[in-house]
Amino acid sequence: MLQVIGYAAKEAKASLTPFSFERRDLLDHDVVIDIQYCGICHTDIHQVKNEWGRSTYPMVPGHEIVGTVSQIGSQVMRFKVGDKVGVGCFVDSCRNCDACSQGLEQYCSNVLTTYNGIEKDGKTPTQGGYSNKIIVDENYILRIPDNIVSERAAPLLCAGITLYSPLMKWKAGPGKKVAIVGLGGLGHIGIKIAHALGAEVTVLSHSPKKQEDAKKMGADNFYTTSDAKTFEKLEGYFDIMINTVSTDLNLNQYLNLLRLDGTIVVVGVPEKDAQINAYSLISARRNLAGSLIGGISETQEMLDFCSKHDIACDIELIPIQKVNEAYERILNSDVRYRFVIDLNSLGKM
Amino acid sequence: MLQVIGYAAKEAKASLTPFSFERRDLLDHDVVIDIQYCGICHTDIHQVKNEWGRSTYPMVPGHEIVGTVSQIGSQVMRFKVGDKVGVGCFVDSCRNCDACSQGLEQYCSNVLTTYNGIEKDGKTPTQGGYSNKIIVDENYILRIPDNIVSERAAPLLCAGITLYSPLMKWKAGPGKKVAIVGLGGLGHIGIKIAHALGAEVTVLSHSPKKQEDAKKMGADNFYTTSDAKTFEKLEGYFDIMINTVSTDLNLNQYLNLLRLDGTIVVVGVPEKDAQINAYSLISARRNLAGSLIGGISETQEMLDFCSKHDIACDIELIPIQKVNEAYERILNSDVRYRFVIDLNSLGKM
Repeated sequence: MLQVIGYAAKEAKASLTPFSFERRDLLDHDVVIDIQYCGICHTDIHQVKNEWGRSTYPMVPGHEIVGTVSQIGSQVMRFKVGDKVGVGCFVDSCRNCDACSQGLEQYCSNVLTTYNGIEKDGKTPTQGGYSNKIIVDENYILRIPDNIVSERAAPLLCAGITLYSPLMKWKAGPGKKVAIVGLGGLGHIGIKIAHALGAEVTVLSHSPKKQEDAKKMGADNFYTTSDAKTFEKLEGYFDIMINTVSTDLNLNQYLNLLRLDGTIVVVGVPEKDAQINAYSLISARRNLAGSLIGGISETQEMLDFCSKHDIACDIELIPIQKVNEAYERILNSDVRYRFVIDLNSLGKM
Repeated sequence: MLQVIGYAAKEAKASLTPFSFERRDLLDHDVVIDIQYCGICHTDIHQVKNEWGRSTYPMVPGHEIVGTVSQIGSQVMRFKVGDKVGVGCFVDSCRNCDACSQGLEQYCSNVLTTYNGIEKDGKTPTQGGYSNKIIVDENYILRIPDNIVSERAAPLLCAGITLYSPLMKWKAGPGKKVAIVGLGGLGHIGIKIAHALGAEVTVLSHSPKKQEDAKKMGADNFYTTSDAKTFEKLEGYFDIMINTVSTDLNLNQYLNLLRLDGTIVVVGVPEKDAQINAYSLISARRNLAGSLIGGISETQEMLDFCSKHDIACDIELIPIQKVNEAYERILNSDVRYRFVIDLNSLGKM
């Protein structure tokens, strides 16, 4: 077994503290990754606090992982020792179902999440990237392009693909008007990707303070959602809106900003159900859709796209010892725009 | 001015009673239609009762109109006296906007509804098909194929196109699993069209009594929504679901019946907003969409499709004197499957 050190929540809502654990022995198609960086996703907080009711403990969170290959199994073909690689939200799937066959492993009903899942042996819990090493099947590992700085690449593995996938699916590009709702970890990378795709990008944010940042990232327009005039002015304007906000919005207001055949894609899960008026949909054949991260091949495509367009995340790098403080700051929307943990700070414990 | 007789509601929630009124003088592109049949749509009841708050009185309802051309304006090219024609939910539009340019006049923000609208003169109210004559611009008139019996064609002008348009837009056809939710005026024609398109058709109805009818219309499967097992058994099953039910359903339950990338299209407006859980959408990239009738060219396409596939509506023909009773019966779901008024019963008044 592989001895690993990391930070874990030992029970629901507990602070993260140092934790030693074992990962499975190396299998033929496995790759050992020495983790250098791991982004902090809001999902980590939901899971640590058991807000979705499906958490198991101890839990080592983290699914925005970048590191270096340090060992490979006997049959590994795609990676070699020293490669710069990444791991996202899942580390395996059934490989046979309709979703897997389409390269949409994220929708596989047996997808194995990077942490808070159970390995294929039926008993070992998966543990995430707030740790010094991880073992992953080569088919679920991404190649990080050389020109993306590792720590700024990490959040692409979740936040990046969460925005890239719906922007591609709903065809953001030249001549399309795209709204990014919410300027946080997800939204900021959405602006960059939508801009690089050639779309006209508008940011809808509750905070007027972020306007300058939004423009630097490539936004063409910026409107504050606290101003009721925004909803009059932009009525029927957008082809595509990506809602990155997990708080409860009045989605009918936002639906009315879509033009004929436009789509709002939600990528976060608010606590309460959204209230949807059928007339908002019917009156302009509008769509409300949801999208979940992306498959392995699409995630690689996203990384290569970011490489080509010089896109990386805006981050604040922290040592693992500050992870609990970072969680508090995320809950106060006090981060521009993603925390990334430097796992070198783990030391030897 | 053209002298017309019909039945009108003189004020909100009033019964319909005989009413004489004038229609505009014949313009160059206008066609006078002697109305023979007019279907009763649930919308007529909503409008008569002012349930959407935008009704004006006196109101002559009716937008599922079939009749014969009796007179044409000097510039009319497309129709001649004696032609069998139809009029649906609207009689004009701006002809310039994005929607009109795409042949989607139903989404034009200046669409002129067949009744409860204001003519382009800015003052004359439009009045519908519960009357003996109507004047309509030739560009907003449909040709009724000879082989469709006139009275059974009438409801195609609203109910038929309301189902045909989303079934085409979301690509119902061979290999696709389509659910028709609700077996009423809309649903029954949806079964026939989806079946003719080559899709596998499943009816979800609260009433087990309609199973035999559904099968006769072309349904492959029938499930009752009062049986909780229906929602277990059909989880992740459908590509397309058309919700024709205007009462408040738990749409999350129905969303879970969609497979990856599936879509529920709502075509009715329930009183209350629907409660939508984002996870129902996100977990399988599902879509919730709305659709409103169809444009003129698509309505003609639908009529020609029905002609080719021998599709017509199942109706109960009534004299105009029974219209108020018919409204009561519709509210009690006591009609199989659409009332059509025989306007010959109007007599001379």
